[in-house]
Amino acid sequence: MGGDVPIPELRRALHRVADEIADYLDSVGERRVLPLVEPGDVAAQLPPSPPRTGESLEQILDDYKQLIEPNVTHWNHPGFLAYFSITGSGPGIIGEALASALNVNAMLWRTSPAATELEVVTCDWLRQMLGLDEGFSGHINDTASISTLLALAAARHRLDPTIRERGLAGRSEVSGLTVYASDQAHSSVDKAVMALGIGHGNLRRIACDEQFRLAPEELAAAIEADRQTGLQPMAVVATAGTTSTTSVDPLTAIADLCQRQGLWLHVDGAYAGSAAVCEEYRRHFAGWERADSIVVNPHKWLFTPVDCSVLFVREEDLLRETFSLVPEYLRSQEGEKNLMDLGVQLGRRFRALKLWMVIRAFGVDGLQERIRYHCALAEELARRIDGDRDFEVVAPVPFSTVCFRWLEGADDDERDAKNEALLARINAEGPVFLSHTRLRGRYVLRAAIGNLRTTKEHVDAAWRTVRRCARRLDAAG
Amino acid sequence: MGGDVPIPELRRALHRVADEIADYLDSVGERRVLPLVEPGDVAAQLPPSPPRTGESLEQILDDYKQLIEPNVTHWNHPGFLAYFSITGSGPGIIGEALASALNVNAMLWRTSPAATELEVVTCDWLRQMLGLDEGFSGHINDTASISTLLALAAARHRLDPTIRERGLAGRSEVSGLTVYASDQAHSSVDKAVMALGIGHGNLRRIACDEQFRLAPEELAAAIEADRQTGLQPMAVVATAGTTSTTSVDPLTAIADLCQRQGLWLHVDGAYAGSAAVCEEYRRHFAGWERADSIVVNPHKWLFTPVDCSVLFVREEDLLRETFSLVPEYLRSQEGEKNLMDLGVQLGRRFRALKLWMVIRAFGVDGLQERIRYHCALAEELARRIDGDRDFEVVAPVPFSTVCFRWLEGADDDERDAKNEALLARINAEGPVFLSHTRLRGRYVLRAAIGNLRTTKEHVDAAWRTVRRCARRLDAAG
Repeated sequence: MGGDVPIPELRRALHRVADEIADYLDSVGERRVLPLVEPGDVAAQLPPSPPRTGESLEQILDDYKQLIEPNVTHWNHPGFLAYFSITGSGPGIIGEALASALNVNAMLWRTSPAATELEVVTCDWLRQMLGLDEGFSGHINDTASISTLLALAAARHRLDPTIRERGLAGRSEVSGLTVYASDQAHSSVDKAVMALGIGHGNLRRIACDEQFRLAPEELAAAIEADRQTGLQPMAVVATAGTTSTTSVDPLTAIADLCQRQGLWLHVDGAYAGSAAVCEEYRRHFAGWERADSIVVNPHKWLFTPVDCSVLFVREEDLLRETFSLVPEYLRSQEGEKNLMDLGVQLGRRFRALKLWMVIRAFGVDGLQERIRYHCALAEELARRIDGDRDFEVVAPVPFSTVCFRWLEGADDDERDAKNEALLARINAEGPVFLSHTRLRGRYVLRAAIGNLRTTKEHVDAAWRTVRRCARRLDAAG
Repeated sequence: MGGDVPIPELRRALHRVADEIADYLDSVGERRVLPLVEPGDVAAQLPPSPPRTGESLEQILDDYKQLIEPNVTHWNHPGFLAYFSITGSGPGIIGEALASALNVNAMLWRTSPAATELEVVTCDWLRQMLGLDEGFSGHINDTASISTLLALAAARHRLDPTIRERGLAGRSEVSGLTVYASDQAHSSVDKAVMALGIGHGNLRRIACDEQFRLAPEELAAAIEADRQTGLQPMAVVATAGTTSTTSVDPLTAIADLCQRQGLWLHVDGAYAGSAAVCEEYRRHFAGWERADSIVVNPHKWLFTPVDCSVLFVREEDLLRETFSLVPEYLRSQEGEKNLMDLGVQLGRRFRALKLWMVIRAFGVDGLQERIRYHCALAEELARRIDGDRDFEVVAPVPFSTVCFRWLEGADDDERDAKNEALLARINAEGPVFLSHTRLRGRYVLRAAIGNLRTTKEHVDAAWRTVRRCARRLDAAG
């Protein structure tokens, strides 16, 4: 009765998938990065209702090839330089495929000993690779959004452990909890304070210096002002690698301040944290070893397929106290480490498998080499932009992301419009995809290099595309 | 410089993975469900530090075969009858493998048109399959823990939209927010109210009737009592398929009450909701169409690999108002539906792909057939237990989970100890894995049938194992 797809059909389909994946990755660079579709185009080609009877895997894979694969944005494309470019590398894909076949839930040690222990060991490997001391222990979440939410929940718990039971609502003794982050910090900080009931208005966005780094004196002043009005500063989120420019907040000064003030320090190294794998980049992170929590996403710049976000904490027990809650149907033996206790989510995929495979396949040397190469490409791109009098680099380039601006236009507003038009033109061409941000209110372009397939030739081609598109826009007036 | 693993090596490894997966699924039933390991055994076999240089995929896969695969708990084993047994079916595995190769982030429409549109369409297919009207729209989260948290966050927002900005702390106008759920509701409700700052103490656990269903008169009394003391009832979480017994709360009576009281109604159908795919089981869910939100996890009983939890909401805009927040670097065009706006997490895997493949491969008929078969197996098992004078079924069996108890022992405490010993003995044997819960304070065994590989023979064998272990324990005194 029923059952799964018969093994011979599944085996055949899996072998086809093996070739589809290899072929796709082999040729992804020949496509446009962005598919030529308008909203609704894909949905219009799908039946509005589910099929009554089953279809063969062969047929489903045909439809996948015809309708899905061509209409995704190709994050694997070497010309994908938007947002933070990433790669789910071969070893990571293999890890994900095997994890989905095992389909274990790593909520309890008992529900998968190997998944739990591999997660602990692999996070410890990563800790060593980042140069963090043994006082940090890590576990894997789906996203930095959740890792940061957990960190701030632990901060809230440390400030007042009665919040777990009594909540925040209407309680004057926990009124005015405030969180601090720079005006360049990621939107996940905003979402976390909203979700946790702290309130978006109690997140203080602290001004940055000229290099987009949180200004410690501004932070000190904001904390002081809040204390004077009776508010309760709770935590600082410092960023090591902001989303717009990859700037790094002055971690040591912030750690000093947090220590003096008794505030939780969470370091968001979701993207750039991976660079600490290279000894020469560790100087950027000096001070993060004094944080209470650090998030680093191997799915960003450590070539692991989404999702894989590692949260390191100093006091794992505090995280456990914040969330642990064991109903009878999940009760297990003493001495078994149950990772469900460290967060909100009960269901936990076997994400350590892919991270383990990535670290082993490339080795620490290989990962360093790849990160260094990306940074060198970015440095060279920045040099070329700076050498062109029609363009300027608008922020320092500590890692592998370059923010720049076309200097066309009589005033700032006109320049904004010109840069926006330029971006649209570049992305319409096909082989390169850039994104944008605003710095000091002004529209700027971003080129983020983080894909394993991106080489010097691709970056050169991207820069030629930028210049060509600018010339054509110029000619068109 | 660097790059990914060369395509030929990757292709070879992917073909090996195809065979590993097919072989594993073909033979998983010949293993023990629970591996014979103690805490620390796996970790002890892993190097304490990451490798300096890269290793071949072949070597990594050898280690996977030797160390990882044998030491997971085999959720795919047909004798896995613990917790809620699940299957990541063949089509789902294929979907996950392809999704990890595409490695798109479905945060914005633009960052993957096909991923966004397939998610919208597939969730709408599921809506139709469950018999829900067009007023519900769905999106995919990782877990029901997150889906329920989002639903309660939206409830909080509807009660007072200023909470987003101002938070809860110290504000008398939002003091005493309370949430209601039965004493059988899932622990994710507890974690959600803790995370959201509502406080665990403000979750009212309402007593159930003799059949473990929330008692509406108790709920009404609790709401009334809270209102009289000046508290603000906010939401009710009704469960359609509780974790211990799969009981279904009286949804119509609860919906009436929520309507009269202006409370948000969230229905947790994470496990049993999938049964609504069969028309004859829809009667259990009558009333859920009046909910504000419903969560159903295809990764539980719809044969989709973890993670895949669908949250249906009546007012998607409310969810958007609760969380939407668009920084400049993520700003996109008008008319593009960006699923990141509906939740906390920015990063979003392409989870719709596996769900689409599962629905297509089995078809609605095939899914119904499989769910019906599981329910029939459970019904028969319950009949056999009831026919044995040494055992009793201790809760109704509306779906495919049977709670039962060995009647050995002079009093309740002794019976608890006997049942606990019996469970340990059963699970030590190897071919079957049951779990336990407590009902009315008493230790009971659970057999949950939800795995595609489980047949009548496996359930018969499990029952024989239970009886044999009981006889041996008896003989041992």
